[in-house]
Amino acid sequence: MNARTAIITLTTDFGYSDPFVGIMKGAILCIAPDLQIIDLNHGIPAQDIRAAALNLAASVDYFPQGTIHVAVVDPGVGSERRPILIHSAGHYFVGPDNGLFSFALRDNQSTLIVHLSNEAYFLQPRSRTFHGRDIFAPVAAHLARGVPATEFGSPSKDCVSLRWPVVKRAGEFIVGEVLYIDRFGNLFTNIQERDLTGLARERIRIHFKEIKIQGLSQNYVERDKHTYIALVNSWGLVEIARYNDNAASHSGAKIGDEVRVELLTL
Amino acid sequence: MNARTAIITLTTDFGYSDPFVGIMKGAILCIAPDLQIIDLNHGIPAQDIRAAALNLAASVDYFPQGTIHVAVVDPGVGSERRPILIHSAGHYFVGPDNGLFSFALRDNQSTLIVHLSNEAYFLQPRSRTFHGRDIFAPVAAHLARGVPATEFGSPSKDCVSLRWPVVKRAGEFIVGEVLYIDRFGNLFTNIQERDLTGLARERIRIHFKEIKIQGLSQNYVERDKHTYIALVNSWGLVEIARYNDNAASHSGAKIGDEVRVELLTL
Amino acid sequence: MNARTAIITLTTDFGYSDPFVGIMKGAILCIAPDLQIIDLNHGIPAQDIRAAALNLAASVDYFPQGTIHVAVVDPGVGSERRPILIHSAGHYFVGPDNGLFSFALRDNQSTLIVHLSNEAYFLQPRSRTFHGRDIFAPVAAHLARGVPATEFGSPSKDCVSLRWPVVKRAGEFIVGEVLYIDRFGNLFTNIQERDLTGLARERIRIHFKEIKIQGLSQNYVERDKHTYIALVNSWGLVEIARYNDNAASHSGAKIGDEVRVELLTL
Repeated sequence: MNARTAIITLTTDFGYSDPFVGIMKGAILCIAPDLQIIDLNHGIPAQDIRAAALNLAASVDYFPQGTIHVAVVDPGVGSERRPILIHSAGHYFVGPDNGLFSFALRDNQSTLIVHLSNEAYFLQPRSRTFHGRDIFAPVAAHLARGVPATEFGSPSKDCVSLRWPVVKRAGEFIVGEVLYIDRFGNLFTNIQERDLTGLARERIRIHFKEIKIQGLSQNYVERDKHTYIALVNSWGLVEIARYNDNAASHSGAKIGDEVRVELLTL
Repeated sequence: MNARTAIITLTTDFGYSDPFVGIMKGAILCIAPDLQIIDLNHGIPAQDIRAAALNLAASVDYFPQGTIHVAVVDPGVGSERRPILIHSAGHYFVGPDNGLFSFALRDNQSTLIVHLSNEAYFLQPRSRTFHGRDIFAPVAAHLARGVPATEFGSPSKDCVSLRWPVVKRAGEFIVGEVLYIDRFGNLFTNIQERDLTGLARERIRIHFKEIKIQGLSQNYVERDKHTYIALVNSWGLVEIARYNDNAASHSGAKIGDEVRVELLTL
Repeated sequence: MNARTAIITLTTDFGYSDPFVGIMKGAILCIAPDLQIIDLNHGIPAQDIRAAALNLAASVDYFPQGTIHVAVVDPGVGSERRPILIHSAGHYFVGPDNGLFSFALRDNQSTLIVHLSNEAYFLQPRSRTFHGRDIFAPVAAHLARGVPATEFGSPSKDCVSLRWPVVKRAGEFIVGEVLYIDRFGNLFTNIQERDLTGLARERIRIHFKEIKIQGLSQNYVERDKHTYIALVNSWGLVEIARYNDNAASHSGAKIGDEVRVELLTL
């Protein structure tokens, strides 16, 4: 890998009021001083592994092949949970083995999983509470400089996977749930565009709490400001929104709330 | 343009709890892997086009000639509003045509406005809700690599402009308003240094709600901690502040509140 | 210094809702277009010089030699407080002389302190309220390009130092205090690992408000979720925490609260 154009992305729940992310960048630059370090998101809710996994799944395809994605949402740091490196479909992933990367991985015969056990690539001494700084940042930096993945430890057969909440069919209904809420208060559901394949957009009715939304909009401005709309969003998911407004705070929505799509017969 | 030292700045209302900004950076780096991507501000209030326009106006002059400023505060995404590219006074602007850039543009005969219509430079497939990722990021990256501005679409005669709230004169008063409130709670008004030209700093009295401030200070520490002060700030605007304290929360100020400058006769 | 791999870090209380940090980056890039600018932390509480000093002290050792650390928590901007540049133990520091760097400096015979007085390296005209943009950013950029430290002004014998709150011994107790609270609600105390040298981890009892914690844990998961734990954290400080939970909000802790370590006799 050419360090000069190598890219490392960082995804953490470290927030924006401490120097932890900056410290990781320093640890990277000590080893590989001339690469692109990109912040994917450090506002993941504390300890919310699934939110981080969703962030990564929505992002990876928009980065160049060879990008190294470091993620640290790591409540189990210093315990038995393993540090891992994954190479899958041209992307590298470095972080704790707790499911963080499972939504971003594609079914792929050639996925390589390495248990990070070669301490020669860790910072010394290393803490038991900040592996982002002491293990993941230096391993990613050495990887960016061209150290082969298999140098960092022993291959492993599997890694922890999170369960993707699958939608259910119940008669004329597709039953899903609120999966993610963005800063605009838009409600991302687990209902994917492909779940609606073959259905006419105007013959769909979305049910959420007492809210009923007729049809799918193309964008946010199709309806009146004080109306809920639904659309297929940029992640390919059915989303409930309000134009220039916050659907989450208006509806009191929270992650896991049920959303139903009704297929209208005319 | 030399991609190695090209600079793209990003200004959005995407906040700091989602991966949207990171995704845009990935889309840029897929096309132009070795440039400087600078976050100008992603904490613009949701859908607040004017706040973003003020941010850009205060920033552009401090960046090198040739910098590409991408801004995405885009409630009309996917609707009739046009995507545009502007080249003015040595700077490039890429984003929705909704007024975002109007305060940053200088009166300039040679301003070039291009309606982004050449889909060859867009991501495919493109969404109707995230043009930051699908149009503005790739266009900016191709521009950084040297594609001429006119390649991206057809020239346009004009673009949407926001109204700058001009101050009024009323007898011995200059009447303005609160234009912007920063994280310190300092109140930036629309009264510019040049509105005070020829006036002695000590012969001015600022009126804001029940607050009266005598004279303009040079900096924040000139007065007692529990006193309001006024000064000409780093954007060249009259500002109301409190030393080591928050003028906005103390006074309950909000954008648009009236501020009057009285010219004292002795 | 080789500008291509030079690193400038930025630490401010400018927050994440204004363009001030982005403007500083522009001012840097106008002078040195091809270097790494790393955000250490911009979420320092407004005007909290000590929090910034702690951030820097925890971070500097993880950056390469030659890194330039710019910090701007500067309530005294434009007043008599001096702008300074410090070169100490291979690191450079640029900012106001108000104690910001004092925890990061090592006792070092060869520390060089320069009072920034050579206006040739400042932006012109310069404001009285934003020296981050007008003095510290351009000075750091010129330094990164190889201008010798002594060019920026006259050497100075000393700089402002903050007092580190030292722990006290009282019989069987080490008496310290809460020094810093991170985004997870973990309470960092001023009790350092070396204060516990020679003590068995299991023969320690931490007292904080009505909370008693027996022994030091190795990591966050050693105990039950609804229990307070104590450990030596990644900054080498005794820390009070709760697994997957927020110790600060549960306990109502604030900076300065007393923490006592009892040495148990068996």
